[in-house]
Amino acid sequence: MRKSIATVSLSGSLSEKLGAVAAAGFDGVEIFENDLLASPLGPEDIRKRAADLGLRIDLYQPFRDFEAVPEDVLENNLRRAEQKFSVMERLGADTMLVCSSVSPDSIDEDELAADQLRLLAQRAEAHGIRLAYEALAWGRHVSTYDHAWRIVELADHAALGTCLDSFHILSRGSDPRGIERIPGEKIFFLQLADAPRVAMDVLQWSRHYRCFPGQGGFDVAGLVHAALRAGYTGPLSLEVFNDVFRQADASRTAVDAMRSLLTLEESVGLASPPGRVVPSSFAFAELAAADTEPLRALLGALGFVRTGRHGGKPVELWEQGEARLVVNTAGASRREGPALTALGLETPDPGAATRRAESLLTPVIPRRRAAGDVPLEAVEAPDGTELFFCRTRREDHPSWTDDFAPVLPLEDTAGPEPGTVVTRIDHVALTQPWHRFDEASLFYPSVLGLQPNESLDLADPYGLFRSRAVANPEGTLRIALNVAPVPGERETHPQHIALATDDIVTTARRVRDHGGGLLPIPGNYYDDLRARHGLADDTLATLRELGILYDRDEYGEFHHCYTVTLGRVFFELVQRTGGYRGYGAPNATVRLAAQHTAELGLRPG
Amino acid sequence: MRKSIATVSLSGSLSEKLGAVAAAGFDGVEIFENDLLASPLGPEDIRKRAADLGLRIDLYQPFRDFEAVPEDVLENNLRRAEQKFSVMERLGADTMLVCSSVSPDSIDEDELAADQLRLLAQRAEAHGIRLAYEALAWGRHVSTYDHAWRIVELADHAALGTCLDSFHILSRGSDPRGIERIPGEKIFFLQLADAPRVAMDVLQWSRHYRCFPGQGGFDVAGLVHAALRAGYTGPLSLEVFNDVFRQADASRTAVDAMRSLLTLEESVGLASPPGRVVPSSFAFAELAAADTEPLRALLGALGFVRTGRHGGKPVELWEQGEARLVVNTAGASRREGPALTALGLETPDPGAATRRAESLLTPVIPRRRAAGDVPLEAVEAPDGTELFFCRTRREDHPSWTDDFAPVLPLEDTAGPEPGTVVTRIDHVALTQPWHRFDEASLFYPSVLGLQPNESLDLADPYGLFRSRAVANPEGTLRIALNVAPVPGERETHPQHIALATDDIVTTARRVRDHGGGLLPIPGNYYDDLRARHGLADDTLATLRELGILYDRDEYGEFHHCYTVTLGRVFFELVQRTGGYRGYGAPNATVRLAAQHTAELGLRPG
Repeated sequence: MRKSIATVSLSGSLSEKLGAVAAAGFDGVEIFENDLLASPLGPEDIRKRAADLGLRIDLYQPFRDFEAVPEDVLENNLRRAEQKFSVMERLGADTMLVCSSVSPDSIDEDELAADQLRLLAQRAEAHGIRLAYEALAWGRHVSTYDHAWRIVELADHAALGTCLDSFHILSRGSDPRGIERIPGEKIFFLQLADAPRVAMDVLQWSRHYRCFPGQGGFDVAGLVHAALRAGYTGPLSLEVFNDVFRQADASRTAVDAMRSLLTLEESVGLASPPGRVVPSSFAFAELAAADTEPLRALLGALGFVRTGRHGGKPVELWEQGEARLVVNTAGASRREGPALTALGLETPDPGAATRRAESLLTPVIPRRRAAGDVPLEAVEAPDGTELFFCRTRREDHPSWTDDFAPVLPLEDTAGPEPGTVVTRIDHVALTQPWHRFDEASLFYPSVLGLQPNESLDLADPYGLFRSRAVANPEGTLRIALNVAPVPGERETHPQHIALATDDIVTTARRVRDHGGGLLPIPGNYYDDLRARHGLADDTLATLRELGILYDRDEYGEFHHCYTVTLGRVFFELVQRTGGYRGYGAPNATVRLAAQHTAELGLRPG
Repeated sequence: MRKSIATVSLSGSLSEKLGAVAAAGFDGVEIFENDLLASPLGPEDIRKRAADLGLRIDLYQPFRDFEAVPEDVLENNLRRAEQKFSVMERLGADTMLVCSSVSPDSIDEDELAADQLRLLAQRAEAHGIRLAYEALAWGRHVSTYDHAWRIVELADHAALGTCLDSFHILSRGSDPRGIERIPGEKIFFLQLADAPRVAMDVLQWSRHYRCFPGQGGFDVAGLVHAALRAGYTGPLSLEVFNDVFRQADASRTAVDAMRSLLTLEESVGLASPPGRVVPSSFAFAELAAADTEPLRALLGALGFVRTGRHGGKPVELWEQGEARLVVNTAGASRREGPALTALGLETPDPGAATRRAESLLTPVIPRRRAAGDVPLEAVEAPDGTELFFCRTRREDHPSWTDDFAPVLPLEDTAGPEPGTVVTRIDHVALTQPWHRFDEASLFYPSVLGLQPNESLDLADPYGLFRSRAVANPEGTLRIALNVAPVPGERETHPQHIALATDDIVTTARRVRDHGGGLLPIPGNYYDDLRARHGLADDTLATLRELGILYDRDEYGEFHHCYTVTLGRVFFELVQRTGGYRGYGAPNATVRLAAQHTAELGLRPG
């Protein structure tokens, strides 16, 4: 189907918006009146600009507070409308959105509303214009889509139809199945927006928190389904007001918007992009560091062994069990110390995974490879992390590990106990830039087929983090996305890699004894742990000694501890018992404060 | 009364918070449990730290999900409580906050709740501890203060009283007058918080949007009155969770908090700080500029005439009617161009105004004066703007203008028409740093006695502004406070000075003809204006020619236009007719977009 977007959804000037919308592959736009008013370009210029960009002007919006008014007000409203019609003719727009009135002037009488809308439709028709009447969720007398439709039916004019907006319908909890009873040709327009499920005043909710379908909690696909069954054939159009998008780069937002519509089309069976290829585990995590010495010492203490060196680049492979870390000193020097720059995702079909990502407008990373290197498929996540689709040491596919020549272990990691205390990467936590969080919330499910968890708030001494995990259905690949709810310094909060172990006490002791530096946890935490969970004294003493945190849920137990931070990255050791599903969120405040204390060089009491 | 604050209200580590609280003059603190758990200091260390700072630990909080549970859960809950009692003994805290349960384990039976709370009170008493039972607004069975009080009454134990929290009470719309029926000695604690009046889920509202009394929309003073009439003698304690305060500097927040409590004490008659001295008009606005040439040209075009030069500093006085501008080239060089740095406020008693400000912890600005200079009283507003309290050319007080020696007008402003087309400063608009907006919302009413208007949202092409005006009762002194709802570049949006005129067309022509540079407004705006307000064609043509914007309200009409921006400041010309009260908010989007267009050097069509 044709895809469209309202200019109000993007930041910038009107001409900037049109360019971004065209570049992302949209077919049309809704012109938001304020964007036109604020533009230095006249309506004819905008018409030409849109035509040059291959964009149809699908809708001019909104016309407010028209219907069900006393005679004298009606006259004034018709005069207002005539001026809009004239602008629309200059603009080349043939459909106008008419919102249900919020005015105290309006009268609660459907017959009157229908009569006046019929009159307006007659006037519109004379200009070759159609009217799409929409119920605002906060309309004074008309606030539900079925009510708006009853009035349209009553007015019974060819130039008058209805506009459905998923936000207005779903925010009120209306049942969208009733849409199927509306004749498809009378649905003149379909506006789509999602929103997080929060209980708040619907006007505030609409103005500040709308998001693209798939980024919130509404069943937008179900609503589109109903409209399709009704016979709707017009464009799928996004209309989103959102404090983040207002500040974000328009071209980036337009791509995010298009990814949302493509995913939505797939979910309602309107399109068949290459299918999702869900990754099964982490093939590796890549750390970039200009100076690798502190990192090597920490990896050694964690039990990792250097097993390979890349043939043509200053890149090393470190392994332990199924946990693999790539240490890269190429690229720009990083003053900030080590950082997590890429993830290898173990996947059944790397080529298919890339085709899926590309079809959803994910930037594919061009690889300049030396002759003989294994071809690597990689795309860029919203936060800039590179995602490599891999098959590691399988017979059916070249393995990225083949680029690494075996090396002798470094002396200091070739101790008497090379043992695999760490078994695999349990999860990684990626700090998201503030204005990429919604985009990431859609990206991981739609591109990679990961399932999102609920969002959580975590407090640190200087602010909050919002955290949302995505995982494959088996829980063998998990990524925690963290973001500060407002922009600020915490956008550069370190990333971390959580390593699974079957024996956290032994592992933590090993790290400590090899000088790896565990994060000290305040004694007060353990006094409280006794009260909360009734742990035995000797157990508590061990946890306290090693700075191990504890949590449990209905499925099992969770023990975890942290290394100190190196540059922009730290490690967590985790032991899950009995199917525990979380990430130790109740301990986050204590951990974050402890990291702050460690940063200041203070010692816990 | 004693004044206290919960540590959760401030950012940073627990020891950092205690220092800030003591420095702001508080008598005590509530220790928030998570702050203790996350602290590297043990309870005894914190006890000592607080004692050294002269702070009493008034409350330990919160103890959750205790009451009205089955026997087996009760046992566990009592074990939890014993551990808290032991921490409190080490901490030297004698009162524990017990929140009404939100647990699905709890049973809706007041008798059971009372029995178990009595049991807990017996245990507490053995440690010399009292319990303050509080109804959370989202408590499972107990969510109102009168219900909590009924249970306390039923339990009937000397060590059990109630805690009242203004947020929990007022957010539910409960009538606080019922508090007067509670015996004062059974109100063990009073927690105070305000909040903006928004319709949203009460838990989200509480966690993210609380603010200090006087910064929101609740009648906190009325509630304190009721508690005082009941005979409450404990501390007034602030407990505020707020996303801004979580990031703000603790010592700054603590001062803001204390100012709120001092103002609250005054409003309920508990204290009599020096009275408010409400300013009557702007004595002057001060512009700092390293290079004054572009500014001089603009002032000349606006009809200002240079009338004086300061005796000892590179400072000039420019006047027109009652509008006075001070142009200062002293101080640091300003790459950004001219900026608004100070305001002179015409006030009946400058000394008393300063004493008022000082009593509310406003920084007083020390003046290094040359011998013979007129003494000036000045304080610093939350955004750093200097506020001078003045009496201009009155017989009863030295006038700041006496520091300026008369000069001949500059040649280029001494044209044939020195006329006073501008009569006075109508208002100034100050862009607030994101984390100072709440502080400013309280500062102007409490320190200067200005009355706040409602907050408005204004959209520009790259985000939103929130705008709130404060004004004296006569409307002869108005300040618009603008802030971006999230931090970002728009914190450095220019300030502006609005100049009143009785004939905006003549004034705007004069500016234009003298090369002053008016902000061009898009033609689309005027096409729309015709439709909205039905203005006559020749009127519209004049407005269009000069870029004059138009608005009206129930009281009258408003015409306004803007100069181009110089550095960080621009001027507005305004003409109010018939008592119009606003600031042209409906035109803000067009104006902001036009400023952006002008910045890019584009020309409107």
